[in-house]
Amino acid sequence: MQPPTIADVEAAQVRIAPYVRRTPLLRSEALDAITGATVVVKAESLQRFGAFKARGAFNRIASFTEAERARGVIAYSSGNHAQAVAGAARTFGVPAVIVMPSDAPRVKVDNTRALGGEIVLYDRVAEDREAIGLALAAARGLALVKPFDDPFVIAGQGTAGLEIFEDFGPVDVALAPGSGGGLVTGVALALTARAPGVAVWGVEPAGHDDMVRSLASGAREMNAPGVRSICDALLSDRMGAIPFAIARERLAGAVAVPDDAVRDAMRFAFRELRIVLEPGGAIALAAALTGAVDLKGKRVAILASGGNVDPVQFAAIIAA
Amino acid sequence: MQPPTIADVEAAQVRIAPYVRRTPLLRSEALDAITGATVVVKAESLQRFGAFKARGAFNRIASFTEAERARGVIAYSSGNHAQAVAGAARTFGVPAVIVMPSDAPRVKVDNTRALGGEIVLYDRVAEDREAIGLALAAARGLALVKPFDDPFVIAGQGTAGLEIFEDFGPVDVALAPGSGGGLVTGVALALTARAPGVAVWGVEPAGHDDMVRSLASGAREMNAPGVRSICDALLSDRMGAIPFAIARERLAGAVAVPDDAVRDAMRFAFRELRIVLEPGGAIALAAALTGAVDLKGKRVAILASGGNVDPVQFAAIIAA
Repeated sequence: MQPPTIADVEAAQVRIAPYVRRTPLLRSEALDAITGATVVVKAESLQRFGAFKARGAFNRIASFTEAERARGVIAYSSGNHAQAVAGAARTFGVPAVIVMPSDAPRVKVDNTRALGGEIVLYDRVAEDREAIGLALAAARGLALVKPFDDPFVIAGQGTAGLEIFEDFGPVDVALAPGSGGGLVTGVALALTARAPGVAVWGVEPAGHDDMVRSLASGAREMNAPGVRSICDALLSDRMGAIPFAIARERLAGAVAVPDDAVRDAMRFAFRELRIVLEPGGAIALAAALTGAVDLKGKRVAILASGGNVDPVQFAAIIAA
Repeated sequence: MQPPTIADVEAAQVRIAPYVRRTPLLRSEALDAITGATVVVKAESLQRFGAFKARGAFNRIASFTEAERARGVIAYSSGNHAQAVAGAARTFGVPAVIVMPSDAPRVKVDNTRALGGEIVLYDRVAEDREAIGLALAAARGLALVKPFDDPFVIAGQGTAGLEIFEDFGPVDVALAPGSGGGLVTGVALALTARAPGVAVWGVEPAGHDDMVRSLASGAREMNAPGVRSICDALLSDRMGAIPFAIARERLAGAVAVPDDAVRDAMRFAFRELRIVLEPGGAIALAAALTGAVDLKGKRVAILASGGNVDPVQFAAIIAA
């Protein structure tokens, strides 16, 4: 499949406008002071279903044919894509099957079920979610809504980038979570089209830094199996093929930050922004706070990608 | 002093525009489902310094003469007004003395100090903050920024009501915290001017329900001394005289809700809205969630007034 173009992102913006929220850009004097920059935080945690994933899910499902939608959809996801697909499917009156890892945060499983999704659990280490999803899709005639390796999904996520430009103007630097790469490359597609000089960086958990290695080697590298980060939303095995093609052309690079910096960023978001971020949702903020990317004197956009976090985990982190 | 008029609120909006944020209206399918209404949450927790108080503080300090500002300002406050006055004063290069209760949440004392305020602590039960403030003001020639009983402050808070109308259109019901009454009466001033049929309700902590009793008796009633609520921002002794005059003309009424409902509302805000609300900031949401005011079929605005809460307290509530 071909990578999406800026025209696809623009079309997505029109298509999903009735279904998604235009999320606010939050400011913080403390964040500007720490970074020496002028920073906006795109709070996708305030998006429907609590993450940017609503953008791609609505764009993908709205673009299926009537016949495809009538048969139903399927998705595999650690949680945020799961909720978005279940929620978007329900909006269109479409049945949804969601394949989720058995160790997904309970809040994400509960939310997905509450949104009407039929949940199939799998073992993240022993089983292959893509194989399970494809088998179920074939057996039941379901249309697959991939989490990132799909032009419609990437174009949908890119609408967050268009909103940043429309609401704040050109930025010098944008920071977004890595993992599969749908968000960071969709945003890069939008921002580089609008302001060619922008440097868009992917941010991923230390120990799960396939984007850093892939951009260095020129081929899609894998993460070793196993969970080595609290960023449950950012644990894909490797980048998608389409995101990787976009990343090579349009990203300035990628950086990895340790979980302790993510926890600090969650505390900062609680205290200074008064918003709830899940670990993966705070990782781009962590990169800014730790100086992983030089921001001094620049206009900066940070994607705070999601806010679905178990209250017990959140409480333990902020009260530490 | 005369109560402010809608013209004063409109003038305040222009005056404070460079200094305050236009806070977003948040939506939640879950909130609509529970209330049977179409609800927007005005997230003043995302305001500068984490509460609506920035509006009144900037409007008051920007309206002082150059000579008054040169001598400095003083405020007494349990915390949110303290931060706002310290922050607004610093913006104008004005020294600020802040009289705070010794049992104020640490986060509020720390934030006020970080904003450059000189802090004077007092005993909430044994001492009279107003007397302390007036004595210091007289001794040091400081201009007093009252927390609610001031036309400029009320007009400033009312700008939140103008924004609700401008961004969402006419509402049938608005719910805002009570206490001194600056916010709820400022918002009532704005909303009743724009949409005369609106019912604006004050919400206060059970056991600290002077607004309910004052509206019933027709005279400003006192709260008995002592703290009986986790809503540290809503523990004024009684309503201000000017807010009371506005309340009698423009409020539909007032209701009291118990602390347990406030805790539930904080959990709801964490889980469904993904925002951080302090107890007092969640009380109007609590009134909606518990059905303290009938909202069925109506267009409703809820003022989520602040998000300055100690992390340990917040953690204990959301993880319960």
